[in-house]
Amino acid sequence: MSKKPSIPKGTRDFTPVEMNRREYIFSIIRKNFTNYGFEPLETPAMENLSTLLGKYGEEGDKLLFRVLNSGDFLSKVDRSSLDNIEAKDLSQHITEKGLRYDLTVPFARYIVQHQNETTFPFRRYQIQPVWRADRPQKGRYREFYQCDADVIGSYSLWNEIELIQLINDVFCDLNLKVDIKLNNRKVLVGFAELIGKPDLFITITTAIDKLEKIGLEAVYKELKINGMEDWQIAALVPLINLSGSSRGKLEKLEEKFENNETGKKGIKELRYIIDYVESNSLSSRVSLDFSLARGLNYYTGTIIEVKAVDVNIGSICGGGRYDDLTGIFGLPGVSGVGISFGADRIYDVLLQQEAFPAEVKNATKVLFVNFGEKEARYCMNWLNTLRKLSIPGELYPDSVKLKKQMNYANQKGIPFVALAGEEEISKNVVSLKNMETGQQNEMNLEKLKEVLL
Amino acid sequence: MSKKPSIPKGTRDFTPVEMNRREYIFSIIRKNFTNYGFEPLETPAMENLSTLLGKYGEEGDKLLFRVLNSGDFLSKVDRSSLDNIEAKDLSQHITEKGLRYDLTVPFARYIVQHQNETTFPFRRYQIQPVWRADRPQKGRYREFYQCDADVIGSYSLWNEIELIQLINDVFCDLNLKVDIKLNNRKVLVGFAELIGKPDLFITITTAIDKLEKIGLEAVYKELKINGMEDWQIAALVPLINLSGSSRGKLEKLEEKFENNETGKKGIKELRYIIDYVESNSLSSRVSLDFSLARGLNYYTGTIIEVKAVDVNIGSICGGGRYDDLTGIFGLPGVSGVGISFGADRIYDVLLQQEAFPAEVKNATKVLFVNFGEKEARYCMNWLNTLRKLSIPGELYPDSVKLKKQMNYANQKGIPFVALAGEEEISKNVVSLKNMETGQQNEMNLEKLKEVLL
Repeated sequence: MSKKPSIPKGTRDFTPVEMNRREYIFSIIRKNFTNYGFEPLETPAMENLSTLLGKYGEEGDKLLFRVLNSGDFLSKVDRSSLDNIEAKDLSQHITEKGLRYDLTVPFARYIVQHQNETTFPFRRYQIQPVWRADRPQKGRYREFYQCDADVIGSYSLWNEIELIQLINDVFCDLNLKVDIKLNNRKVLVGFAELIGKPDLFITITTAIDKLEKIGLEAVYKELKINGMEDWQIAALVPLINLSGSSRGKLEKLEEKFENNETGKKGIKELRYIIDYVESNSLSSRVSLDFSLARGLNYYTGTIIEVKAVDVNIGSICGGGRYDDLTGIFGLPGVSGVGISFGADRIYDVLLQQEAFPAEVKNATKVLFVNFGEKEARYCMNWLNTLRKLSIPGELYPDSVKLKKQMNYANQKGIPFVALAGEEEISKNVVSLKNMETGQQNEMNLEKLKEVLL
Repeated sequence: MSKKPSIPKGTRDFTPVEMNRREYIFSIIRKNFTNYGFEPLETPAMENLSTLLGKYGEEGDKLLFRVLNSGDFLSKVDRSSLDNIEAKDLSQHITEKGLRYDLTVPFARYIVQHQNETTFPFRRYQIQPVWRADRPQKGRYREFYQCDADVIGSYSLWNEIELIQLINDVFCDLNLKVDIKLNNRKVLVGFAELIGKPDLFITITTAIDKLEKIGLEAVYKELKINGMEDWQIAALVPLINLSGSSRGKLEKLEEKFENNETGKKGIKELRYIIDYVESNSLSSRVSLDFSLARGLNYYTGTIIEVKAVDVNIGSICGGGRYDDLTGIFGLPGVSGVGISFGADRIYDVLLQQEAFPAEVKNATKVLFVNFGEKEARYCMNWLNTLRKLSIPGELYPDSVKLKKQMNYANQKGIPFVALAGEEEISKNVVSLKNMETGQQNEMNLEKLKEVLL
């Protein structure tokens, strides 16, 4: 007997139970994307490496899964150079395609490629897997789904407001309490300028971004190593850690930014959003967090991050505004704003909180027991009627012992079992057993429909 | 300006319009899979090459997309051998994973891997993309979706009957007239035995399989070249080309198979299925076609193929019974039967027949025009109420010229536009414009809900 087969590390099979739960999450996200006017889009799993490389930093390039060229992939390689070629260099000659690393870069590529057939502002959503050759660990996979919604081609802050409402609606529907945190990159730039270190902007925000993870002392050290003086750090920390209401925080910062145009602009944007959102009393808490930086890779305005209130698992949704996403592909000056839901983490949170509704399981409503040829034919007629009404049902395909068939229904969590022997057939009824209560009742087709619908 | 970006040949972007049409097809297939008790399953895009290699024939191995090992993939390669190594040999050392080539082999792998936690008979469906490094041509892509449903762990012919009904129901829902053709591999084996050439079984069926494509003369030649004598071919041809009703054909063949056990078994199985299906009068035509072989790779019993009646595009759905799919992974003796819908071809057929319903398009029901800050806030309140009722709507995010906003609605096919200026706001109404008729009416929120629901 051969060795039991396996799958690549960091990848997963999704069993029916897991699939039903995942689909519960996806369907809520999809419904809300649709309610907000976002339209579906899909891009290929493979992109040209020229599209992907250089978009995720040096570290990201290393995490791309590269697809070997088909056929004689060595035909264009100089053989004599192979003796001491480095893997990195050889890979450039033998691979041209890579697996999608996120949904944002392919979306930017799509926009540029399809700009003439696209109506702007373009609101699209995309729910597809992405692949990263990361070291697998708990909660981190090499294949995972992203659920993105973006508006591209509009500077209006209504887009931010709508995305925040959308986030609120999704987590409301999922019965999950979340904190929605906001920041603005212009505020972060303002901080760097305020303490006279605009050149250290990236360093500062990178360090700030780790605040929650590594603590203030470590952040302090990191800033120091990177050339900041004590008084600068001392000036920075209280800005980041402002307390009070959102409006209060904005007022305090506004004073500080009296002479800083960038910072002022950031405050104005945040105030516009906060004003509307607070007047509209969402069920999720929306707050300002000036330490929020989200890696910063391409955000230029609003930054959004969402955390579950009762589970400590990091961000389960995030996003922001980027003013020049398509510039790298030759279409400058198109602003966009988007969010991304982390379906895998949301799954883990719901599981941990036992927040999946009980009805999220096998869709099959009824199993017809197979007592033999004649009985099976009788049941199949009933079954076909139910299916026409979209009541999912099965006939046990083999005429085996009743116990085995009942076990099957039990293990699959099918709530009702219909039995039809000679007596039932003569009376044109079935005996329907409720698998939870154990109760069994004879009924005709009309009554059966009523029970199962 | 950089070169316009592109995607790998043979792959596709799906625009919102295409996505909505595709989702129409998938949702009908999914609904029927569910009605018949099939449960969803997903497997990773990447499988270990040991799982994939050797399962699709030599040609199939060449068509696998291989994923380059991460990191220093040359570290385990003997450098001195690189000078004259062949690509084929090198690829074995630098790739361990490949992209899914179909859904059947990963499913077999899944079954063996998860056998202890799976309830048999196991009915699963799977709708995922697959990848093949085929030469791209019209209607043939390097990335395409398969939609499979299989029952595994039951020899009962009820499974075949249910799958045929399921096929019928799917194409009924799609409003597509199809022919469902049946054959049985045991009948084909019977043919080979009958003409005294059991050893040429594969050759014969391979040739027969091409009958429709290359014509009788070419098939004749191919059989001749492969060692068949004229009388054998002459005996074979009328068997394949039997005419008459299904029952009539079965009777004629039964006589021929008087002394052939395998052939007789095939006839018995086909008769069982045909008897039930004909008594149940499906809306699709179900007929027997003894030339049907479907590549034969692993089928051992029933063979199913579906063609559109009014469009000449080849098979749009197919399947059959395989008695030992999981044997290669160390779990012998598990019989299964399954079907696969070709979503891309079904898409092409529906497009060609203009059979997509008119309502399969942008889900957004209404666009609220943005006349400025105050008006936008007013509209946003209305919009939020509609969204809570799952009526998808948008506010144009920027306060630009009316004409531009109307154009946007037009291009996106949004059926209604709601306008609210000072007058409407004072009366607590909106003016709703029907974009098709051009009619415009003032209405309050209650009336608006009524129109849009």
